[in-house]
Amino acid sequence: MVKAKTWILKKHFEGFPKESNFELKVVDLPEPKNGEVLVEALFLSLDPYQRALSRTLLKEGDVQYGGQVGKVIQSKNKAFPVGCHVFVHSGWRTRTLSDGSDLTKLPSNWPKDIPLSLALGVIGMPGLTALYGLEEVLQIKAGETVLVSAAAGAVGAVVGQICKIKGCKVVGSAGSDAKVAYLKELGFDVAFNYKTVSSLEEALKTASPDGYDCYFENVAGPFYTLALSQMKKEGRIALCGAISLYNDTTPQTCSYPHMTMITNHLKMEGFTVWKWKHKDEESLQRLLTWMKEGKLKAKESVTVGFEKTPAAFLRMLKGQDMGKAIVKV
Amino acid sequence: MVKAKTWILKKHFEGFPKESNFELKVVDLPEPKNGEVLVEALFLSLDPYQRALSRTLLKEGDVQYGGQVGKVIQSKNKAFPVGCHVFVHSGWRTRTLSDGSDLTKLPSNWPKDIPLSLALGVIGMPGLTALYGLEEVLQIKAGETVLVSAAAGAVGAVVGQICKIKGCKVVGSAGSDAKVAYLKELGFDVAFNYKTVSSLEEALKTASPDGYDCYFENVAGPFYTLALSQMKKEGRIALCGAISLYNDTTPQTCSYPHMTMITNHLKMEGFTVWKWKHKDEESLQRLLTWMKEGKLKAKESVTVGFEKTPAAFLRMLKGQDMGKAIVKV
Repeated sequence: MVKAKTWILKKHFEGFPKESNFELKVVDLPEPKNGEVLVEALFLSLDPYQRALSRTLLKEGDVQYGGQVGKVIQSKNKAFPVGCHVFVHSGWRTRTLSDGSDLTKLPSNWPKDIPLSLALGVIGMPGLTALYGLEEVLQIKAGETVLVSAAAGAVGAVVGQICKIKGCKVVGSAGSDAKVAYLKELGFDVAFNYKTVSSLEEALKTASPDGYDCYFENVAGPFYTLALSQMKKEGRIALCGAISLYNDTTPQTCSYPHMTMITNHLKMEGFTVWKWKHKDEESLQRLLTWMKEGKLKAKESVTVGFEKTPAAFLRMLKGQDMGKAIVKV
Repeated sequence: MVKAKTWILKKHFEGFPKESNFELKVVDLPEPKNGEVLVEALFLSLDPYQRALSRTLLKEGDVQYGGQVGKVIQSKNKAFPVGCHVFVHSGWRTRTLSDGSDLTKLPSNWPKDIPLSLALGVIGMPGLTALYGLEEVLQIKAGETVLVSAAAGAVGAVVGQICKIKGCKVVGSAGSDAKVAYLKELGFDVAFNYKTVSSLEEALKTASPDGYDCYFENVAGPFYTLALSQMKKEGRIALCGAISLYNDTTPQTCSYPHMTMITNHLKMEGFTVWKWKHKDEESLQRLLTWMKEGKLKAKESVTVGFEKTPAAFLRMLKGQDMGKAIVKV
């Protein structure tokens, strides 16, 4: 019998989440039976979708969902020997009992000098989201101009870097001057602080007077409507997230997209990373290669201590982090 | 020198158009010079886009735009001899002087028993719009379920019939019981009157409990938002029109489509018929063949007399016509 700490959703969110929505709960786990393993959490992932889908995926009392990187510490399953590192979507918990079916081993050629926590960021779900959004949904081509919102977020920062790898011009928006500086460091051609520009429309026009071929959408709100109006003919929009809506108690509304989309023959597609799961193994290798070649950089916002997970989650939702938000357990 | 009657846009529309927005004006046309022809209008086309794009395409005093079928009555251009029938987008006018560059001859194999006016409907722009929306945008496949709004309109009625030719199930909505009866006559699997159903959501669910693979969108408004919520995973939406918005003085708003589109991996594409102009000749032949085979039926709402054009236009916008609205000059 071992103990596992968990953070449960005590009460569903109303508007912006509070620490009091969560409760720390210690549970007992039985010894692994044949075929089972015990995983010790090393890093937890904090992501906007953990807010967005909570009403759909959770009931009160459930462990908050999310991905983590862990280490197998007991094993009765040959596929996952003691000491191996895995990704598991078991939520905010320090220990996980698994029959192996929900575990993914980290790539066996993971370089020693690349932190394991990146399996939650650039070499993980956010990196894959950026890659699939650009390659599968937007199908970006060299020479095109790509706009990305929430560009300093875990997904957006990878979007911008892959755009540069592929020979595109990339324009990013973010919510602080420090983030804008970070985007320039990452190689974004233009970056601006959407909170301080005098006119968002002017900022978008100045950044690309001819408009945008592609828009990687993470935010919704007025930014979305303005971005739509700045698309070139035959432009494409990938809907990845809508962070400005997640905490609404009364739903916001927007203009009907019809006339803009009809006149300019725009295409818009909503997607989640899970659609291309069959490509994940190969895609992670491509991301890893770019990382080793120095073409991809990673920034993490690390909070130390499992107890601080809810506070770190709120900070991420407020946009106070730079790069991927994680908890070092 | 010949006289031509024209309807000019005297004053831009504010809200729903009125007859007083137009003014009848007689103009003089010079004799055709070398290379030119004089076209006598036979039928004028009345279409929702003539309301939707007026602010973009017209200034006050311009002839109201739109397509017509006419007959060449004087010719100094061998490509268009006297007596030949043409389609020309010269607006609401009884006579048109042309150098031939804006004329399209009707297919030379046009059967004697098919009215020439259908070149403005099933065998014209509305028919092509339906065809391209289904084949190029939605890429419908046999066995799929397709929803179409404004289904008794010039485009919608062809959409439904092509769906049946292609082996799809098709559900249509319209705004009167007479229109619903007409849709059933055309072979729609399900048709309902959106104005009298007790719940639009229930009507959509009952018509296809498993949801919709494709939605051919003509209306916007609450119907659009509900249709989006009833799409199957990986569903596709073709944005063709937004008739419920065209007369707005204050723009209506809708929910952000993000969460619905992201969760269900929906694709949405705005289009106009002009995108596939290079295929028109071949496509018109296909529509003509289906017509001759009895697979496509056409209904027209004919107003006789050029003088009545504005009144007929208002009736079409109010949804009081069944089938394609035209004016017999």
